[in-house]
Amino acid sequence: MRAIILSIGDELTLGQTVDTNSAWLAKQLAGIGFRPAAHLTVPDDRDAIRQAFEESVGRCDALVVSGGLGPTEDDLTRQALADFLNQPLELAPAALENVERFFRALRREMPEKNRIQAMLPRGAEMIENTAGTAPGIYCNYLSGDQKTVCEIFIMPGVPKEMKIMFERSVRPKLAGGEPGRVGPGSAGVILSKTLHTFGLGESAVAERLGELMRRDRNPSVGTTVANGYVSLRLNAYFPTPAEAERQMAETASACRAALGDLIWGEDEQTLPEVVGRLLAGARETVTTAESCTGGLLAKLITDVPGSSAYFKQGWVTYANDAKTALLGVSPVTLQREGAVSEAVVAEMAAGALERSGADSALAISGVAGPDGGTTEKPVGTVCLALVARRDAAGGSTRTFIFHGDREMVRDRSAKMALTMLRFHLLGKPLPF
Amino acid sequence: MRAIILSIGDELTLGQTVDTNSAWLAKQLAGIGFRPAAHLTVPDDRDAIRQAFEESVGRCDALVVSGGLGPTEDDLTRQALADFLNQPLELAPAALENVERFFRALRREMPEKNRIQAMLPRGAEMIENTAGTAPGIYCNYLSGDQKTVCEIFIMPGVPKEMKIMFERSVRPKLAGGEPGRVGPGSAGVILSKTLHTFGLGESAVAERLGELMRRDRNPSVGTTVANGYVSLRLNAYFPTPAEAERQMAETASACRAALGDLIWGEDEQTLPEVVGRLLAGARETVTTAESCTGGLLAKLITDVPGSSAYFKQGWVTYANDAKTALLGVSPVTLQREGAVSEAVVAEMAAGALERSGADSALAISGVAGPDGGTTEKPVGTVCLALVARRDAAGGSTRTFIFHGDREMVRDRSAKMALTMLRFHLLGKPLPF
Repeated sequence: MRAIILSIGDELTLGQTVDTNSAWLAKQLAGIGFRPAAHLTVPDDRDAIRQAFEESVGRCDALVVSGGLGPTEDDLTRQALADFLNQPLELAPAALENVERFFRALRREMPEKNRIQAMLPRGAEMIENTAGTAPGIYCNYLSGDQKTVCEIFIMPGVPKEMKIMFERSVRPKLAGGEPGRVGPGSAGVILSKTLHTFGLGESAVAERLGELMRRDRNPSVGTTVANGYVSLRLNAYFPTPAEAERQMAETASACRAALGDLIWGEDEQTLPEVVGRLLAGARETVTTAESCTGGLLAKLITDVPGSSAYFKQGWVTYANDAKTALLGVSPVTLQREGAVSEAVVAEMAAGALERSGADSALAISGVAGPDGGTTEKPVGTVCLALVARRDAAGGSTRTFIFHGDREMVRDRSAKMALTMLRFHLLGKPLPF
Repeated sequence: MRAIILSIGDELTLGQTVDTNSAWLAKQLAGIGFRPAAHLTVPDDRDAIRQAFEESVGRCDALVVSGGLGPTEDDLTRQALADFLNQPLELAPAALENVERFFRALRREMPEKNRIQAMLPRGAEMIENTAGTAPGIYCNYLSGDQKTVCEIFIMPGVPKEMKIMFERSVRPKLAGGEPGRVGPGSAGVILSKTLHTFGLGESAVAERLGELMRRDRNPSVGTTVANGYVSLRLNAYFPTPAEAERQMAETASACRAALGDLIWGEDEQTLPEVVGRLLAGARETVTTAESCTGGLLAKLITDVPGSSAYFKQGWVTYANDAKTALLGVSPVTLQREGAVSEAVVAEMAAGALERSGADSALAISGVAGPDGGTTEKPVGTVCLALVARRDAAGGSTRTFIFHGDREMVRDRSAKMALTMLRFHLLGKPLPF
């Protein structure tokens, strides 16, 4: 089965926005046995969009479209679809209800302008949008001579709304089953799995994987780096799902044997979620004392629904005075060692542990940049401390030098703090 | 002048790599007066690539291609170009010298495999690659009936090599001038500007813009939504840069007149940066007291380099006990009004203001979800408070209902808190 992915928007063709939808959709489609034959991007131009429909339907079994469903005059996808189908746009009551419900939830009146979002070409169906105002559009296109059949799915361009709509409605319709299952008429199955690591560089991870990364291996193992995580992408191509699953499980085991606890999770799992589960399992709580990360560590911990079970409070002590006033860090230590020092983070963590009554406390202080670096403590230098109530040794401190800009240094610092906590909860030493 | 951007590679069509080349190229092309009519991505498939050439040349003046020039068997762009041009591949001595020079610089022997990279279709020219092994390919395509003329540029897919080659050779060839200037033979110049708003929905923004959003207007004004911000995209197409700049300034003024202070910034500016500049200008400091956002507000504020000038400390009081212990929120208020109430955020802000000595304090408490919603306070209900030292009125509190998942609710809450502070610093009431 072949798919074409069509993205619509001036901001895309003009390069003002990088199109991330197409890659995401391509991955999802490949996972259910649809091979993406092409990605196409056209501007908010009624003729260009119509032409894209015309030229695509004969070349694929599924045309997956995003963008141009908004309420404003530069949103022309529904009009172009109507032109292509040669059908009038009609008000669809179910779609109107979808739009109105969105505004009701916000306790706001629906602007007249949004009424257009409830219009569909005659014969098309609405796809429910549970995350925004724009319902999607589905139609099963059949050419006059009945030779061309193509399912058309149109979703909003906002990545989040698009993804939710794809998961809820488009994937089930296309696959008639779970992700990873063979699509109707597909020649085989592609199973994918991702394993995530943090702390080692890509080449160090590759070195440990060795022969597992051979190009001609099936399942294949590749590495990608994103947001500081080095992730292993496993792809298994086999004639049957059972064979693909068996082979995938075997290769995943081999990767785990090579990397051990460096692998913190897989697929959609997040590091804060995994650490949160460990905390909840141990019935322990954690608190935070942050300088250079400015609240990012607490934010990551509370990204997880239900984190209130193990996180009660945290401090952002950005200025030296605040470290002393809120956490009792000694001015002498600050003066003698500097704010970015293992002595200071140790006192920050101890102060937070005492004031919070938590089972453990994480503290971070560093030079996030772009300014503030010195020869001795260059930009990227970050001190971390973990102090635990049940830890007779009085906790541990570490200094890292993270590479990259301010955002990267802050991000890696918070993730390394979570990693220290993870290994602490696993009862193992940090392996780097 | 019209351009089409063609990207080639299985990793792109399968979604394993997000295509950033196309957006970058689109921006560059728009800057020299080429309107990108479409982006197209096809797999490493000789027929698919040839077909993409065939269908694109008649639709644009410049076809700008990247990818598929590597030395391995899945790199088929040069072969497909030869198929399309119906010309044999021949060894080009200048191209061979380019490849060999690269290996000499690495002090390595050129593998026999790389010889293919020195092959060009007869009549095509090499584009020098100063950053990698793969020379680019240029040809000026002229159809048999002489009706179609299209310049074809093929560059490597590696973003760094592609960009260097574009800057060195492709841009000068296309434009004969600087970015943003009119190229010889080009019909004009495209200038782009983006204006950012927060707080109103897309249709409400469009309503205020009215006629400014007319499809046939030049400069055009369109809206896009990303991360809760509704942004206005202005594009001006004019024969000369001076005219484009003048018209752009006029349209931007008209947008500002229609939306007033709802516009918080433009182009690459960020909301925390804009608020930070206002704080620094007023020589004021701010502190934060966060419940549902769990540190996100402090994180956003400290995203900005130099934020230590106006942000010294913040509290994350996620649990009720922490609100009382750290900020002095009355247990009676918590009990009577609930943690998500204007009374509680007012006490959180007052407590933070008092304990910090800052000039103003922001507090947030809400139901971020997915659980914890009630009929009275559904998921998305968020109370915000701003208390300022110099504000005799004792500050302001507001309740919003934000739509979306946990991440969206937290994100919008923090941005709305920044927006409250922004209007406070502007000395104006919140306009919604």
